[in-house]
Amino acid sequence: MNLPLLRADLPTPALIVDRAALERNIAAMAAFAAAHGIALRPHAKTHKSADIARRQIAAGAAGICCAKLAEAEALAEEGVRDSHLTSPVVTASAIARLAALNRRIALSVVVDHPVNARLLGQGVDAPLRVFIDVDPGSHRTGVTSPAAAVALAQAIAETGILRLAGVQYYCGSHQHIQSLAERRAAIVERTAYLGTVLAALREAGFAVPIVTGGGTGTFAIDASLGAFTELQVGSYIFLDREYVDCELAGPHFEPALFVDATVVSANTPGMVTIDSGLKAFATDAGVPVVLAGAPASRYVFTGDEHGALLGDDLPELGARVTLMPPHCDPTVNLYDLYHVLDGDRIAETWPVTARGRSS
Amino acid sequence: MNLPLLRADLPTPALIVDRAALERNIAAMAAFAAAHGIALRPHAKTHKSADIARRQIAAGAAGICCAKLAEAEALAEEGVRDSHLTSPVVTASAIARLAALNRRIALSVVVDHPVNARLLGQGVDAPLRVFIDVDPGSHRTGVTSPAAAVALAQAIAETGILRLAGVQYYCGSHQHIQSLAERRAAIVERTAYLGTVLAALREAGFAVPIVTGGGTGTFAIDASLGAFTELQVGSYIFLDREYVDCELAGPHFEPALFVDATVVSANTPGMVTIDSGLKAFATDAGVPVVLAGAPASRYVFTGDEHGALLGDDLPELGARVTLMPPHCDPTVNLYDLYHVLDGDRIAETWPVTARGRSS
Repeated sequence: MNLPLLRADLPTPALIVDRAALERNIAAMAAFAAAHGIALRPHAKTHKSADIARRQIAAGAAGICCAKLAEAEALAEEGVRDSHLTSPVVTASAIARLAALNRRIALSVVVDHPVNARLLGQGVDAPLRVFIDVDPGSHRTGVTSPAAAVALAQAIAETGILRLAGVQYYCGSHQHIQSLAERRAAIVERTAYLGTVLAALREAGFAVPIVTGGGTGTFAIDASLGAFTELQVGSYIFLDREYVDCELAGPHFEPALFVDATVVSANTPGMVTIDSGLKAFATDAGVPVVLAGAPASRYVFTGDEHGALLGDDLPELGARVTLMPPHCDPTVNLYDLYHVLDGDRIAETWPVTARGRSS
Repeated sequence: MNLPLLRADLPTPALIVDRAALERNIAAMAAFAAAHGIALRPHAKTHKSADIARRQIAAGAAGICCAKLAEAEALAEEGVRDSHLTSPVVTASAIARLAALNRRIALSVVVDHPVNARLLGQGVDAPLRVFIDVDPGSHRTGVTSPAAAVALAQAIAETGILRLAGVQYYCGSHQHIQSLAERRAAIVERTAYLGTVLAALREAGFAVPIVTGGGTGTFAIDASLGAFTELQVGSYIFLDREYVDCELAGPHFEPALFVDATVVSANTPGMVTIDSGLKAFATDAGVPVVLAGAPASRYVFTGDEHGALLGDDLPELGARVTLMPPHCDPTVNLYDLYHVLDGDRIAETWPVTARGRSS
C-alpha cells in the first residue's frame, strides 16, 4: 500500500483510527489524571498497539497494563518497557516466560492465590513486583475477603523475592452501568469494601503503596473517592457503542475508532448487504452503529462476512459506509492494521502489535 | 517454539487441530463426492489455511472457495491456485485486484447485479469466469427471481469478456436447522425454486455448466436431490458445537478443532476462571463445550480474556482444559497458528494463512 491515500480507496472492511480524536482523548485523560494527582497506566488490551502505547506514555502515563503475558512480550519487542499484567500467570512454562521478561523490562503482575505466589517466587531469579488482585464480587479473579488478602500478603513475603507493590481492584461489570447515578452508587459501595481490604493489610503490617484499577466507566468516580493511586483506563482512547450509550463522567471523549465497509449487494427493497460481518466486528455487545453513508439505517449481522443495513434511504451498490464498533477491544483484535486518518487521507498505518497475543 | 513438544506445554489459549481426525474428515467428504459423481470445492473461509487447502486438493477437490478477495490473494501467495469467490467484488479498486489475481490463478467470482457485471467486464483484461449468485430467500446476496437471473446472464454476455460458468446457490440459514427431517423438507422446497431459475436460464439460451453450493448441514441432501454439480462444504473438516448439535446426514465426521485453556483463578466455590474469553472464541453461536479437564462443567464468557467453568468437580489452579469452539470459522480467524496434534505431541504448526483477510 502506497501512503498517503484517500480513505475512499481503502479495501474494506478497514479499521480506521482518527488521529486527531485519538490525540485529544489521550490528552484529556492525561490532564485529568495530572489534575487529580493520580497516576495513569492505560490498559493496552484495548489497542494492542506500540504506537498508541508510546503516545500514552509520552503524554505522561507511568507505563501500560497488559491483560496477557504474550501482549506484554509483543509490546516489549517494540520498545514498550513498563508493563503491569492484570491477569494471573500460573503455569510453570508461563512463569518461565514471565521471569525472562522481568529481566528485560519494568514488570509487575497480579497474584490472587498463595499457591501462585509460591510458584512465582520459585520461578523468578530477580525481584518481581506483585499486586494482590482483589475480587470486587464478579468472581473472575482476585482474593475474596480481607483475610484472604492478608494470607496472600504473608505468602508473598515468605517467598523472599516477590515485592508487594500494592493492590489491584477492577470493577469490570460496573463499567457499563448506563446511569451515572447508579454506577456511582455501586462504586461507592464497592470502594467501601476495598477500604476494608486495604485496612486489613495495613493493620497486618503490609504497606500498600499503589492501588490500581478503574476503567473508562468509573475513573472519574474512582478519582473523586480517592481510593486509587493509579488508573487502568483503556477504552477512553477510542470509545465504542457501549460507552457512547453510557452517561460518562469526567472529561469529554469522542469516538476515534471506525470500520469502513462497502455495499456489495442491493437487490432487496429496504436492505443492502455490506462486506463486514462477524469477522469484522466483535459480536459480544450488540451491533455496530452506522455513522456515515446511511446514518438512518440500522445494522444487523447476517454472517461471517456480511451484515445488512435496513432502512428506507439506503446507499447504492459499491457505496461506502462508516460504522462505530459495538465493543472496541475485541474488534481491534480482529485486525492486523490501524489505518490512521488525517482529514480524508490515510497518513500511515500502525500494526496491531499484540493482535491475537492472548496467551 | 521448538517442535515437537507436548500438548501440555503449549501456551494457552492454543488452537489445536487433530491431524488424524482432520485427515479422516477430508477423506470422508472426498469419498462421498466421488461416490456421488459431484465435484468438491471446499470453502476455505472455514480454515483460511494453505496447508489444509492443499490437503483438500490432494484428496480430489477441484479447487477452493474463498469468501473474500484478500483470502484468495493470501492463499494464492502460498500456492493455492484455483479459487472461486463466493461474495461479489464491486468497487473499482477491488476489481483491479481481481483482474490482477485473474492473471495469476484459475479464478471465478459471483455476480448478482447487471451494474456489477458491466463494471467487472470493464475492469478485467482477460476472460473471467463468473457465476450468477441466486438468493435462496435470506436476501444476503444474489438475484431474487428467475427473470433477474436471465437479465443478469444477458448483461454478462454483453460484456464480451465475462464467461458465464454457472450458478451459485447457498442456503446459509438452512445449514443449522437441527432436525434432519425439517432441514430436508426446507431444502427440497428451496431446490425446487432453484430449478425454476435454472430452467429460465436454459430456456433463454444460457448454458449453466456448473451449479455450486451447499454446506456441511445440507450437502448430503443436496447430493440426493441432484441439483448441484459442485459442493462448497467448509465446516466438515473441523465440526463445531453448532454442527455437533445438528442431526447430520452422509458420512460421519468428527470434531478436529479444539482450544486448550488453563485455569488461572480458583477462589470461589463452584467456579474457576480460565484464560480464554471472547478473544479466544467467537461469541456469535453460544458457548464452547468443555471436552476434557472438567467435562461435567459448563462454560460462560466472563470477559475479553476470561471465561468461567461452573460445576461441582472442577480442575485446580493451573490445570488444563480442552474445549470445542461454538462456531469454527470466526474462532479460527482469531488465531495466527494451528498447533497440529499427533497423539499427545504437537508435530508442527500451520499458519492461519488468510487470518483477518476480510477485504
